[in-house]
Amino acid sequence: MAGGRAETRKWSLTPDRRHGAGPAPLPAVFWSLAGNQPPRRRRTWSATMLLHRAVIPRLRQACRLQSVPSRLCIRACSTNDSLQPQCPSLAFSGDNSSTRGWRVMGTLLGLGAVLAYHDHRCRAAEKSPHIYTREEVRSHSSPETRIWVTLGCEVFDVTEFVDLHPGGPSKLMLAAGGPLEPFWALYAVHDQPHVREILAQYKVGELSPEDTAPSTVKTSDPYADDPVRHPALKVNSQRPFNAEPPPELLTENYITPNPIFFTRNHLPVPNLDPETYRLHVVGPPGGQSLCLSLDDLYQFPKHEITVTLQCAGNRRSEMTRIKEVKGLEWNTGAISTARWAGARLCDVLAKAGHQLCGTEAHVCFEGLDSDPTGTAYGASIPLARAMDPEAEVLLAYEMNGQPLPRDHGFPVRVVVPGVVGARHVKWLGKVSVEPEESYSHWQRRDYKGFSPSVDWDIVDFDSAPSIQELPVQSAITEPKDGETVQSGEVTIKGYAWSGGGRAVVRVDVSLDGGLTWQVAELDGEEQRPRKAWAWRLWQLQAPVPAGKKELNIVCKAVDDSYNVQPDTVAPIWNLRGVLSNAWHRVHVRVTP
Amino acid sequence: MAGGRAETRKWSLTPDRRHGAGPAPLPAVFWSLAGNQPPRRRRTWSATMLLHRAVIPRLRQACRLQSVPSRLCIRACSTNDSLQPQCPSLAFSGDNSSTRGWRVMGTLLGLGAVLAYHDHRCRAAEKSPHIYTREEVRSHSSPETRIWVTLGCEVFDVTEFVDLHPGGPSKLMLAAGGPLEPFWALYAVHDQPHVREILAQYKVGELSPEDTAPSTVKTSDPYADDPVRHPALKVNSQRPFNAEPPPELLTENYITPNPIFFTRNHLPVPNLDPETYRLHVVGPPGGQSLCLSLDDLYQFPKHEITVTLQCAGNRRSEMTRIKEVKGLEWNTGAISTARWAGARLCDVLAKAGHQLCGTEAHVCFEGLDSDPTGTAYGASIPLARAMDPEAEVLLAYEMNGQPLPRDHGFPVRVVVPGVVGARHVKWLGKVSVEPEESYSHWQRRDYKGFSPSVDWDIVDFDSAPSIQELPVQSAITEPKDGETVQSGEVTIKGYAWSGGGRAVVRVDVSLDGGLTWQVAELDGEEQRPRKAWAWRLWQLQAPVPAGKKELNIVCKAVDDSYNVQPDTVAPIWNLRGVLSNAWHRVHVRVTP
Repeated sequence: MAGGRAETRKWSLTPDRRHGAGPAPLPAVFWSLAGNQPPRRRRTWSATMLLHRAVIPRLRQACRLQSVPSRLCIRACSTNDSLQPQCPSLAFSGDNSSTRGWRVMGTLLGLGAVLAYHDHRCRAAEKSPHIYTREEVRSHSSPETRIWVTLGCEVFDVTEFVDLHPGGPSKLMLAAGGPLEPFWALYAVHDQPHVREILAQYKVGELSPEDTAPSTVKTSDPYADDPVRHPALKVNSQRPFNAEPPPELLTENYITPNPIFFTRNHLPVPNLDPETYRLHVVGPPGGQSLCLSLDDLYQFPKHEITVTLQCAGNRRSEMTRIKEVKGLEWNTGAISTARWAGARLCDVLAKAGHQLCGTEAHVCFEGLDSDPTGTAYGASIPLARAMDPEAEVLLAYEMNGQPLPRDHGFPVRVVVPGVVGARHVKWLGKVSVEPEESYSHWQRRDYKGFSPSVDWDIVDFDSAPSIQELPVQSAITEPKDGETVQSGEVTIKGYAWSGGGRAVVRVDVSLDGGLTWQVAELDGEEQRPRKAWAWRLWQLQAPVPAGKKELNIVCKAVDDSYNVQPDTVAPIWNLRGVLSNAWHRVHVRVTP
Repeated sequence: MAGGRAETRKWSLTPDRRHGAGPAPLPAVFWSLAGNQPPRRRRTWSATMLLHRAVIPRLRQACRLQSVPSRLCIRACSTNDSLQPQCPSLAFSGDNSSTRGWRVMGTLLGLGAVLAYHDHRCRAAEKSPHIYTREEVRSHSSPETRIWVTLGCEVFDVTEFVDLHPGGPSKLMLAAGGPLEPFWALYAVHDQPHVREILAQYKVGELSPEDTAPSTVKTSDPYADDPVRHPALKVNSQRPFNAEPPPELLTENYITPNPIFFTRNHLPVPNLDPETYRLHVVGPPGGQSLCLSLDDLYQFPKHEITVTLQCAGNRRSEMTRIKEVKGLEWNTGAISTARWAGARLCDVLAKAGHQLCGTEAHVCFEGLDSDPTGTAYGASIPLARAMDPEAEVLLAYEMNGQPLPRDHGFPVRVVVPGVVGARHVKWLGKVSVEPEESYSHWQRRDYKGFSPSVDWDIVDFDSAPSIQELPVQSAITEPKDGETVQSGEVTIKGYAWSGGGRAVVRVDVSLDGGLTWQVAELDGEEQRPRKAWAWRLWQLQAPVPAGKKELNIVCKAVDDSYNVQPDTVAPIWNLRGVLSNAWHRVHVRVTP
């Protein structure tokens, strides 16, 4: 199993330490105390250490140098991309010598109240650890209630560490009240002895035995069989599950890791057996239909492309601020990027005997997810796009090199590059070619744009075309709205994307609400002409104008049709809150 | 003869000035000193005036205001639609009063050395002008030897003016050591009183009588053979000819009549003989090239489509209002629609043995129009578009059922549906497939979009893609800005279009500057999916809200990618004034 391999590999990185042979690596604090840099792989932590030094008394650090470096014996686990629910299994071994070190040194040197309190907690945890339920831990998720996290069976109060977190306080706060494992699995830099050391200082107790076991689920619940999700996801709706990655994680990677890829489900997640799974492809009139197993699908040439998916409702929350809309409160995270692989839809359709005809036709997709009445999710795209090899429409069975996660359509979903997420039908059961668009609710009575003047009393869904290609889009992911930034220089990051394969050619950023602009630097993969299916990440480092107490940061993107984003939200407001692509605005304060 | 007609018509335009009656126009410096804008046709020069002001002391300008505005007695010549060569015949008469003005004011105010020198030169030139041979003038062609030019029999030292030249120093340097006439003939914007005034300041002498005879340099007007134009056209530039239909005619017909179809020429109109015309289609490496007569072209299947052409500079005048740009002052009329017929480019390319290759390639077009150095107009489009039968790129020989008019490319032009006008090369002479875009100025150093922060000092033309597909666009053609409308009900009309075959799906109209919106009715031909090459005309009949004394009418369009127009002009301003597609705004008064 992959998990096993990973475990072996991890241990092999630190064999000497495991067996006590050879010199243990110096804890990171040493480097900051010595004024030197730790070796390359620790560099990301050195800034923290400097911060750390400023806050935690040097004496206490000196103390720690006396202790044995590793206090935790951790069996690593992978929570990446779960086809199977994975239970992080972490066993901790109390190392009494280090605790004694703390106690003795603390007493000897007469440290102040903070250290005494800490020491008290440590001792308490070691001797007869406080036992907490997950419910109790969950209640500690803010500075007011103090910030607790768990790792394995241990509970830590990291309130004092939040501001010292090298990735920024906001990243650590994502785990507040819950387990660290899913985040450590995403960012492997954490899984190092000196990180564990830091954490060990904050231990306040342990989880109750019943909370360390996998939870049981109610079987009557149609959502009971939904997969386990990554706790970093900001949940907009539990049933059906809809969630987005927080902005601070969204643009950390050009390719969004599967566990935090935004999830837009309309119905419960079906649990499909890959052995018995069949895709039904209806043949042309008089022709033969296909019934394809996964193995059949693997026989088609495998095609792999990087594609950004965006929900039509991305950034809906900005429309809600103008006037109420019907829809989930997506912020800027209903967009993610993955490397998809599968069979090209045009190849499968051709195999079934379909070809482009003179008249307009549509390829209708049906999912295997369904509501209690048996109605499945459905959508369609024009046949011309489906049959165009250059449009690269996929019947995808891989996402970032792995089988599709259940939340993302296992075992097969449609991927329609450049087109709104709603057409990328998951858990694909049936494909047919029809003279009309899909009669599905989601094709005909949803995912359409209207004038701001249209309300639910007068809306005529037949008057607007179904959303296919999406307009040009961009958003700021760093800094966050309401944040405080340092004077001097500010780093602004975000994403930009456009529908229809149109490349983003420029992102303009303003610090003064749109009066003056600077051109951001575009990162990420080079785009192929007419096939710019994936976003560009961008950033701008700009001096904060002297004396400014606040900044109104704005971004706007331009695509290769030179379409631009509209300035404001109100004139594009619509009753479903879709197509929200006005300039993205973030207001921050500047520290003097 | 047409030439005679043209001249007669032209003279009739300025009878008062010719006979000394009526007020002479104020010199341009007046406008800059007064802090006002000169009338529209002078606008492109106003920045120069500001620059000029910065360099030449204000006092000297004050001086000039004392002088009689026009120092030159000019027999104006028509640069309009002349079929006959027209020799700009400019006779200069020393106007002693102005010279005295210079001298007296200079003495009175004790100006510095520069002015004294200048004054000296002026006096010298006026009293007993230095006489120079063409040979001597030719030797003054660099900053080291000073830069001299001639106009008629007069010689000017323009060394100090070169850097102030609105068209850039390089353009003026083309004339260094020689006559200005051939360049003024190309760029008729020069042929205005205030330009001649500026020049007059730099006079240093006159040509020897034997050198004033027609020189070896061809002074014949390269535009003399341009066709006669429709008088309804609003002319933005006579040489080359650039003109647009007035808004009140623009949307009278879904198909724009040929005579008022907007005209965008970069060079004189070639006069081609359909009998001897040949189109050179370069074959692939190792293949055979084609040399096609018109009859050969007629042998390809005839393909007919309705296509809207739009200049990248349409609505540039709205950008100019924000900040000066370089370019012709197009209003809303640099857009028109015709029914085009011809051979499909993909058929012709296929006949020449071309096919789509794996790597990106471009189809380069060369016109048979050329400048005095023999440089032809050129542009290119991606091979993928050219070879795609669905993109319907034409080598058109018919426009609205007639052979192409000369102004529109007779006998053959390219029509690239959904793409900026600049790529629809007229008077097509050569087609080739190249690994790179056309190296033409108009492909590489023009027709690109930039951030509002980019000015001419920092612009990097290589950093932006050439404009191909245009963004969504709409404008109001009725009522006109500044008009008065009746209370009761107002009828609003306009056009809407988008690039890339994207259909216009909605036009929103506001009577209150964008606070509330109504949906306009779309007229015109139904659009084919993905091939919406032509505009939609639209109209809205709306009650005028009671008591309203004025209306701020706004329109904005949405295309089938749900791209929208930006709210305002300033954030999309760019130094070339292209891609002006903000909401179109018209302010009208309401009769009580």
